[in-house]
Amino acid sequence: MSTSALAREAIGWCRTLATCTEEPPATTRTFLSPPMREVHRLLGQWMTRLGMVVTVDAAGNLRGLRSSESSRAPSSKPSGAPPRLLIGSHLDTVPNAGAFDGVLGVVLAIALVELVGQEPLPFAIEVVGLSDEEGARHGVPFIGSRALAGTVDEALLSCRDSHGLEVRDVIRDYGLDPSRIDEARIDNRAIGYLELHIEQGPVLETLGLPVAIVESIAGQTRLNVVFTGTAGHAGTTPMDRRHDALAGAAEWVDAVEREGRATHGLVATVGQLLVEPGASNVIPGRARASLDVRHTTDETRLAAVSRVVNAARVIAARRQLQVDFEARFDQSTVPMHPLFIALLEESVRKSGLPVHRMPSGAGHDAMVMAGRLRAAMLFLRSPAGISHHPDESVLEEDVAAALTVARHFLGELSRSTVWSI
Amino acid sequence: MSTSALAREAIGWCRTLATCTEEPPATTRTFLSPPMREVHRLLGQWMTRLGMVVTVDAAGNLRGLRSSESSRAPSSKPSGAPPRLLIGSHLDTVPNAGAFDGVLGVVLAIALVELVGQEPLPFAIEVVGLSDEEGARHGVPFIGSRALAGTVDEALLSCRDSHGLEVRDVIRDYGLDPSRIDEARIDNRAIGYLELHIEQGPVLETLGLPVAIVESIAGQTRLNVVFTGTAGHAGTTPMDRRHDALAGAAEWVDAVEREGRATHGLVATVGQLLVEPGASNVIPGRARASLDVRHTTDETRLAAVSRVVNAARVIAARRQLQVDFEARFDQSTVPMHPLFIALLEESVRKSGLPVHRMPSGAGHDAMVMAGRLRAAMLFLRSPAGISHHPDESVLEEDVAAALTVARHFLGELSRSTVWSI
Repeated sequence: MSTSALAREAIGWCRTLATCTEEPPATTRTFLSPPMREVHRLLGQWMTRLGMVVTVDAAGNLRGLRSSESSRAPSSKPSGAPPRLLIGSHLDTVPNAGAFDGVLGVVLAIALVELVGQEPLPFAIEVVGLSDEEGARHGVPFIGSRALAGTVDEALLSCRDSHGLEVRDVIRDYGLDPSRIDEARIDNRAIGYLELHIEQGPVLETLGLPVAIVESIAGQTRLNVVFTGTAGHAGTTPMDRRHDALAGAAEWVDAVEREGRATHGLVATVGQLLVEPGASNVIPGRARASLDVRHTTDETRLAAVSRVVNAARVIAARRQLQVDFEARFDQSTVPMHPLFIALLEESVRKSGLPVHRMPSGAGHDAMVMAGRLRAAMLFLRSPAGISHHPDESVLEEDVAAALTVARHFLGELSRSTVWSI
Repeated sequence: MSTSALAREAIGWCRTLATCTEEPPATTRTFLSPPMREVHRLLGQWMTRLGMVVTVDAAGNLRGLRSSESSRAPSSKPSGAPPRLLIGSHLDTVPNAGAFDGVLGVVLAIALVELVGQEPLPFAIEVVGLSDEEGARHGVPFIGSRALAGTVDEALLSCRDSHGLEVRDVIRDYGLDPSRIDEARIDNRAIGYLELHIEQGPVLETLGLPVAIVESIAGQTRLNVVFTGTAGHAGTTPMDRRHDALAGAAEWVDAVEREGRATHGLVATVGQLLVEPGASNVIPGRARASLDVRHTTDETRLAAVSRVVNAARVIAARRQLQVDFEARFDQSTVPMHPLFIALLEESVRKSGLPVHRMPSGAGHDAMVMAGRLRAAMLFLRSPAGISHHPDESVLEEDVAAALTVARHFLGELSRSTVWSI
């Protein structure tokens, strides 16, 4: 099948898989929820048809192996087996999701195997359809990739969903054995991980580019800032006698935005702001604001966080408010692997496309995989930057471009010898 | 009993009545809720003991009449009955209230009757313990005073509480007849209404004064301002591509505060701010802010509202946000009656206290009563400005001062002839 026909078919696959949902007609498919079974069945059938060996590991990851010699004759012996390139992404979604976030990367991995056909490669390809990246069900992301990376622990298995079911219960209810989750871990035959994923932002559309090479996944700091003042009667408390928590928080939101705008590549967001008591005729006594700061250079991010924390202290002191900080999350920037980036660059060039590198502001499975092996990502343009929304889309030409680049990547990786050393 | 003994006793009464509550140990007593029956019983006994004729009208207002000649021989004939001065306040509370808001004014009215004793006056005194001023149960305030002013309508009687009970149902369940609510209306024998009430703000404490004469009840404008931008991923949307509804709202909160500070006597408050979708990693797509603006000069208030509305439009236009306004409430300033203010001034002077006039930023029953007859209010200092809170308090010396002023007021009103013309 031609690349463009495969691209069209891949989009069709994504649209079909979007109907595997907990809440029709919306697309909601959380960790090992019932509709995931149908996704496994459909993609499993496709991979089997391509001669791949299909399994579901104890973390609920769908895995399909194409041997190195020929897709029709998979190696049956793990020992002495050839090196293996992992390609994939996640199969779960956020609530009321679009059709492409995650799933497209798995579908394209299989389409790539189909595109390679009978051609021998010096490594096997393992398609991975990861069971959880979004963390929508248990509030913790990356269950699938953490199993591959071997970082699943007791705490993760004990997280409960809104019905009180632990991760391990959900695994068991799906018919899998949580005690065997260690067996999902990748071994040293794995030479790397490639993930194709939609950008989920407006950058490529703005630049008019179909794809980009991810050079790193930006570090994040999340914390809450709580301003406490004095609630009071909105009619009887003169302006100069007030300690209005919301007025302080609003001034700080402005400072956060200015900080974000002042530094290239920095994003700084206040997404939550809860006001207490929250009555129109009562001066706010408390305002709790969230902060989310990301940048690909950890030093830059931490300096920005330090400045906005300081701004909160200055504002609070001037207004005689109390300010408290609640740390929530701190993740350093994860660089993608230089060899894989270089091979991707050459692949983009050979595809006749402009080479563009960019950071990822969102977290991805590749971030977890990078802790264990060479990892790389290729972004596809997101029309209007829309994601995590039913209107999420991709352009057929971009999907074809991504497939072409990935096909070249297999060739470049075959010619490279660095990974085999 | 001496004024200071009566003041001490009045505070004791308030503390006792605070235990008549729907939610012990907190004080919550909404419109005709079960604990109101005990309040009526206790205050009714006290008034009966003073020789007053006690009734509860069809709006649930407790009313006690002291005839003009002697408290021991109430007139039994309404026709040809003497002129009548109403004194009182409300008996309902906000949830988790203090012990003095409203109730103190009713208790002091009765204490005043006790203080007058057998002395004849050229007018009767009717103590009114109004059934609802806060509006906590049905979301609409002033049920009690509106019945006296004759402005209860079908819409008010049909308002429902959180259990679906209409105002008329609640009246009926209390054993009263809602069809007779017109009979609660005050007739033309009423010459005026005097209300003693805690300030509920910090002004008198700042000035070191026990009491103040209310010259007007400030007009209010309440509206909602809704900023609509574009929700987006906090990690993948560059700062210069954002239309962050909260960032716009925060800038506007700042503008509202500056407007309030720029004009003497103006208060401008944003008490509510709801952010959607309200996730820490999502750029806010919508922010709904409340606005509450008050000033004793309607023109000043309306000009300030116009400026902050315009500020919202300017901010929204610059940030490419949509902005919508939802009108909620618009109430003109209600002046207190000049004759009663003058008589109160003379009474304060005769009590050996500094004369201070001030506006009321909060709404009060006197605002409704002023639509029907001469109305006046005397404020008592609120320690730390605390009200609508269990820590609400009064100083015994201030309560004694208020009683003294009210006692002088009866004398001044007796000597004045203007009201009888």
